[in-house]
Amino acid sequence: MPAITYELIKEDPQTGARAGIIHTPHGSFPTPIFMPVGTQGSVKGVSPEEVKEIGGNIILGNTYHLFLRPGSELIREMGGLHKFMNWDGAILTDSGGFQVFSLGELRKITEEGVTFRSHIDGSKKFLSPEVSMKVQMDLGSDIVMAFDECIPYPADYEYTRKSTERTTRWAKRCKEVMTSPNQGLFGIVQGGMYKDLRTKSVEDLVALDFPGYAVGGLSVGEPKELMVEILDHTVKLLPANKPRYLMGVGTADYLLEAVTHGIDMFDCVFPTRVARNGTAMTWEGRLVMKNAEFTHDTRPIEEWCDCYACRNYTRAYIRHLVRANEIFGLRLLSIHNLRFLQRFTAEMRKAIIEERFAQFRSDFLAQYHYGKK
Amino acid sequence: MPAITYELIKEDPQTGARAGIIHTPHGSFPTPIFMPVGTQGSVKGVSPEEVKEIGGNIILGNTYHLFLRPGSELIREMGGLHKFMNWDGAILTDSGGFQVFSLGELRKITEEGVTFRSHIDGSKKFLSPEVSMKVQMDLGSDIVMAFDECIPYPADYEYTRKSTERTTRWAKRCKEVMTSPNQGLFGIVQGGMYKDLRTKSVEDLVALDFPGYAVGGLSVGEPKELMVEILDHTVKLLPANKPRYLMGVGTADYLLEAVTHGIDMFDCVFPTRVARNGTAMTWEGRLVMKNAEFTHDTRPIEEWCDCYACRNYTRAYIRHLVRANEIFGLRLLSIHNLRFLQRFTAEMRKAIIEERFAQFRSDFLAQYHYGKK
Repeated sequence: MPAITYELIKEDPQTGARAGIIHTPHGSFPTPIFMPVGTQGSVKGVSPEEVKEIGGNIILGNTYHLFLRPGSELIREMGGLHKFMNWDGAILTDSGGFQVFSLGELRKITEEGVTFRSHIDGSKKFLSPEVSMKVQMDLGSDIVMAFDECIPYPADYEYTRKSTERTTRWAKRCKEVMTSPNQGLFGIVQGGMYKDLRTKSVEDLVALDFPGYAVGGLSVGEPKELMVEILDHTVKLLPANKPRYLMGVGTADYLLEAVTHGIDMFDCVFPTRVARNGTAMTWEGRLVMKNAEFTHDTRPIEEWCDCYACRNYTRAYIRHLVRANEIFGLRLLSIHNLRFLQRFTAEMRKAIIEERFAQFRSDFLAQYHYGKK
Repeated sequence: MPAITYELIKEDPQTGARAGIIHTPHGSFPTPIFMPVGTQGSVKGVSPEEVKEIGGNIILGNTYHLFLRPGSELIREMGGLHKFMNWDGAILTDSGGFQVFSLGELRKITEEGVTFRSHIDGSKKFLSPEVSMKVQMDLGSDIVMAFDECIPYPADYEYTRKSTERTTRWAKRCKEVMTSPNQGLFGIVQGGMYKDLRTKSVEDLVALDFPGYAVGGLSVGEPKELMVEILDHTVKLLPANKPRYLMGVGTADYLLEAVTHGIDMFDCVFPTRVARNGTAMTWEGRLVMKNAEFTHDTRPIEEWCDCYACRNYTRAYIRHLVRANEIFGLRLLSIHNLRFLQRFTAEMRKAIIEERFAQFRSDFLAQYHYGKK
């Protein structure tokens, strides 16, 4: 029995949207799901109990950050990331690849791996498929991501081909060293914006029989239409009995689009990052809480929200906290934004199961004004 | 029946230390007590539920800050400070005097009041006994502080005499306009470091029959011995049936000293401020959590502490959070430090009631190493 399994509950007959359940050594959770990001062993500003209360069952940890500080060996010594951060739900860790490749000129890629300078102290570090697996085994995450190159946009065909082939070779090396029976290794499809390279990437990775697949290298600056086109092409090639994960996507409209095309899992720092900038996510779009319009507003952020912030605090109070730079305001907004995405994915799931997903989609798009409110 | 009453439970026969209960329109609480500071309508980084959980029954709000932002009229419109910030325990508000006088050259004092420039936008503002009372009535705090001048240290006799006499005249004006039946106005004793002026200040204020008295103008830079000498002189003159409040004191050794001399109430930003700098308060002194000695330390901050941080997290994890600038680390330390002072005051109270306060005092001083750990 693999550590990670996917159970398909219902597929929408009109789109590729699907409702399912993912089983992990730290519990099962419904999909589609949004995973809050706990980059450095903490979902920024939010306690594990608060993550649970908003309905969170799985969070994401970042290999790059934890590798540099406090170091994965310390976390292993402390009993693994779950115990270290007091989180008994599931954890997915990324491979570190995305952050390392984002360092630009500070890193050097070879077949063996990537040499880079730490953003903390400038010291020379090395990540490779083997090191990434070792770090993720130290962390003890339930879902482990293969070490890949996230190809920037735009990238020419030859670069994309060579990089994607190397990502496949790296995926094989990851599989060889990831021997922990309680951790499931996901492959990451690359191939940039080239459909034939996407097809080849899927074929090669599916041959390796991972318990789940991520679609990488999307939402990296390309037009939304192109993203949807490549996503649609890629997902259709993936096996139906494995979970599908779109990395780094965390706004309602993108989640809706990706679920429509068959994606099950998401993560993004967006909801907690914009919370720290004083922005609330709602079914009607974003609210910039410091705006004067909320000065006397005694309503909660959202009338129909059941989160701690909406149950107890007015927009007027939250506006005051944001303007006064009070940490508690950022906490309330972080809780609300995470709960918003939990409710949003739960509503999509319900609509899929009740065979009214297309209607849900058009209803939502009719009322949602991204960033315009 | 006045809004605020004091019930003496036990007085230590060897010192002036006393255990009591203060009754307010928002509940009763045991004394000695430390009041967490919620400067801008939020105890920094800590939720009202968390303040309750650490044993907090009364918090402090700052008139100066709330007067400038969001403005007391907005808070009145929102149903008062309790409702605005979702806190159903008691609230004490200061008068704004301390902050205004701290502005130095940015303020001008006359008999009428103080004109000053807002630290937020530089606009011209005015505070006086009447304005301070109006603001505190808008806020609806349970305990209201008279508008006074906190005399800096050192100050010459003539300046101190004139300022103290004006503070007395201001206290009369405060009493005339503070008409709310659900709020209790405390007088503030001044007189600087001059015993005869302290005596005169107490006599004049006691004649006005306030339901409680603060000792102001101490812990402003004078040597500890001088503070204790003036405190001892002042407290002995105060009526035994009224609570006594020493403003701006929040370290264990100073609390112990002041309780020894008969003080019942304290407030200070210290526990939450040092928490935000990564410092934990303990029975053995302060712990600088980023220090390397805690890298592998699997113990809680304090073995015998029952706070949320100590129940769930290791020193190693908190050290990591502090080094990584994770907000959650500051929250854990804020909760712990506030709980530490709640436990400390509760233990002092227990020792007074059990007639072993002198022993408690010497035991504590023998193990406490202020800032040396």
